[in-house]
Amino acid sequence: MRKIGIPEIEDIALGAALLGAGGGGDPYVGKLIAIGAVQECGPVTILDPDEVPDDALVVPIAMMGAPTVLCEKAIGGEEYKTLYETVSAFYGKPIYAFMPIEAGGVNSMLPIAAAARLGLPLVDCDGMGRAFPELQMVTFTIGGGSATPMAMVDEKGNSCIFRTVTNKWTEEMARAVTMACGGSVSVSLYAMEGRFMKEYGVHGIVTRSETLGSAIRKVKEVSDKTPEEAFLEITEGYKLFQGKICDVLRDVRNGFNFGKVLLDGIGDDKGRSAYVEFQNENLTAVVDGKLLATTPDLICLVDIETFIPVPTDALKYGKRVMVVGLKCFPLWRTEAGLKLVGPRYFGVDTDYIPLEERCKGGC
Amino acid sequence: MRKIGIPEIEDIALGAALLGAGGGGDPYVGKLIAIGAVQECGPVTILDPDEVPDDALVVPIAMMGAPTVLCEKAIGGEEYKTLYETVSAFYGKPIYAFMPIEAGGVNSMLPIAAAARLGLPLVDCDGMGRAFPELQMVTFTIGGGSATPMAMVDEKGNSCIFRTVTNKWTEEMARAVTMACGGSVSVSLYAMEGRFMKEYGVHGIVTRSETLGSAIRKVKEVSDKTPEEAFLEITEGYKLFQGKICDVLRDVRNGFNFGKVLLDGIGDDKGRSAYVEFQNENLTAVVDGKLLATTPDLICLVDIETFIPVPTDALKYGKRVMVVGLKCFPLWRTEAGLKLVGPRYFGVDTDYIPLEERCKGGC
Repeated sequence: MRKIGIPEIEDIALGAALLGAGGGGDPYVGKLIAIGAVQECGPVTILDPDEVPDDALVVPIAMMGAPTVLCEKAIGGEEYKTLYETVSAFYGKPIYAFMPIEAGGVNSMLPIAAAARLGLPLVDCDGMGRAFPELQMVTFTIGGGSATPMAMVDEKGNSCIFRTVTNKWTEEMARAVTMACGGSVSVSLYAMEGRFMKEYGVHGIVTRSETLGSAIRKVKEVSDKTPEEAFLEITEGYKLFQGKICDVLRDVRNGFNFGKVLLDGIGDDKGRSAYVEFQNENLTAVVDGKLLATTPDLICLVDIETFIPVPTDALKYGKRVMVVGLKCFPLWRTEAGLKLVGPRYFGVDTDYIPLEERCKGGC
Repeated sequence: MRKIGIPEIEDIALGAALLGAGGGGDPYVGKLIAIGAVQECGPVTILDPDEVPDDALVVPIAMMGAPTVLCEKAIGGEEYKTLYETVSAFYGKPIYAFMPIEAGGVNSMLPIAAAARLGLPLVDCDGMGRAFPELQMVTFTIGGGSATPMAMVDEKGNSCIFRTVTNKWTEEMARAVTMACGGSVSVSLYAMEGRFMKEYGVHGIVTRSETLGSAIRKVKEVSDKTPEEAFLEITEGYKLFQGKICDVLRDVRNGFNFGKVLLDGIGDDKGRSAYVEFQNENLTAVVDGKLLATTPDLICLVDIETFIPVPTDALKYGKRVMVVGLKCFPLWRTEAGLKLVGPRYFGVDTDYIPLEERCKGGC
């Protein structure tokens, strides 16, 4: 158990934006929401998963929809209270703690805001260890957990609770409501008991985000390495490419940010070209026609000077970025994991080959 | 209080199909669902509104979506139990009786099926006195009633409850879920106390449907009148046109059946032409370029020989029909009523003029 305030939030936002793998929303917007709540209601208690009783009700909090929309259609602040009341009433017992469902610039931040506003602790655990675009894409699905009863609320005060026969049906129904409400809503889903969270969750994700964020911020202070070497070491990342963004194709539809970013090589990669395709999160990285990384491994674009992650929302012509691959949480590499989030699910016609094998002998 | 069985259901289905004003779905499909439930679970008790205690919980039951879809994607039978449990749990008290929300081939029948399956009475009252395509279009909206908490369930077992800030938002969100679930779902909405139902409901709608249905069936037995005269007398209808369907334009989108039916005059109307536009229900009737009737008055197409109503789903090239106008429930002609269901709401650029004035001096 420890308390986090504004400095920790800054680091968590930065680290989580990297783990967002291009998705998870703009950390600046997320940070403002979390900092606003902490300034108003005080610091938030972070619990280690093992500190949560087995039968306690733990509820993930997130936003659903296109992160791009959240910049203009913000969170009101009353949403978490409505979610708390709706879920508590449904289960007939109070919520013990909130938790994040994924790591990302926005969805790592909103649970902090919710915890601050309701005076509840936040568990250091999520269901992805990164960000993914659809809501059945969590380790809890592999464990047989149900996304529903799922509560949704918009900034106007409209709310609903779903119960569905599969998590894929939750996605279908919730996505439809998200679109009807203007493209982004606040949700609670996969409400679970402490014991299930401990068995299937990605432990330590808040702390990992904070550590990464802090290290990225200090990457130029490491004396015996270049900043790039230091960055790759702390993230355990594989450098896939470095280049200048020469085109960005975007298509916001069905509540997702679809697109493709094209890169012209610079430095060691001069004369080569690459592209990264995304559906909220980056899905594939292709260099000179060769596939170097696919989902569920993390494909992250970071600024070549500051190593600050560049989410898909912020991709712009002329920006110089490094494309980095990070290994995903081991459960995603199992057959059940790949069925949920492997390349074929996203329409990429290739088997999953782990990042480190694709990159063997140099990327 | 009285009991209804299969013969009454046949008459109610026929009369309600007329009051459906082209919408409300195929009475054949609706009838099968109601008869199936009554055969399995026994006859249904019909209550006069005044027999319902003021504080009793009365819950309308309906299907939402494109009636065309219901012919292929039917009702499972478990839906009403789920709706009952969901709504009872939400209010913390049992449902006293079901009621229809509108008159129509399907939505007059499903509450009978629900009442039979749950062993509850059905109140002889609805919220339209006809059918309308959107869910805020009920007399209860005029009375300040809320559509939510609204429960929805599909035949697969997916369910949800909404609470929204306005009834228009309920429509938006519920329509989105209806589409996600394949275009038709079972719903309960405008759950209300007995006293509110008595004040704003359209009393006697089940009995009116039954009386009309029975009379249509016997229209050729009236000795001193032609069948057409008898039909117009019992329905208090205005004959607007008679013709042969020469084209039907259809467009199933956003969960509605949109369209237009074109007619070439026959008999007295030979040489003239007409068209009727619809959004689930018939919206306007235009004869030789002159608007003769608009929503909220009822525009009904009936077979020229049998006087059986022809819902928009069943419109076919070559069919000979009479276009009849019926006066709507008085509350719809008030300013508040016309704001909800007047021609301008549906994009028809005309003021509402009552049917009987438009037809003065002959249609």
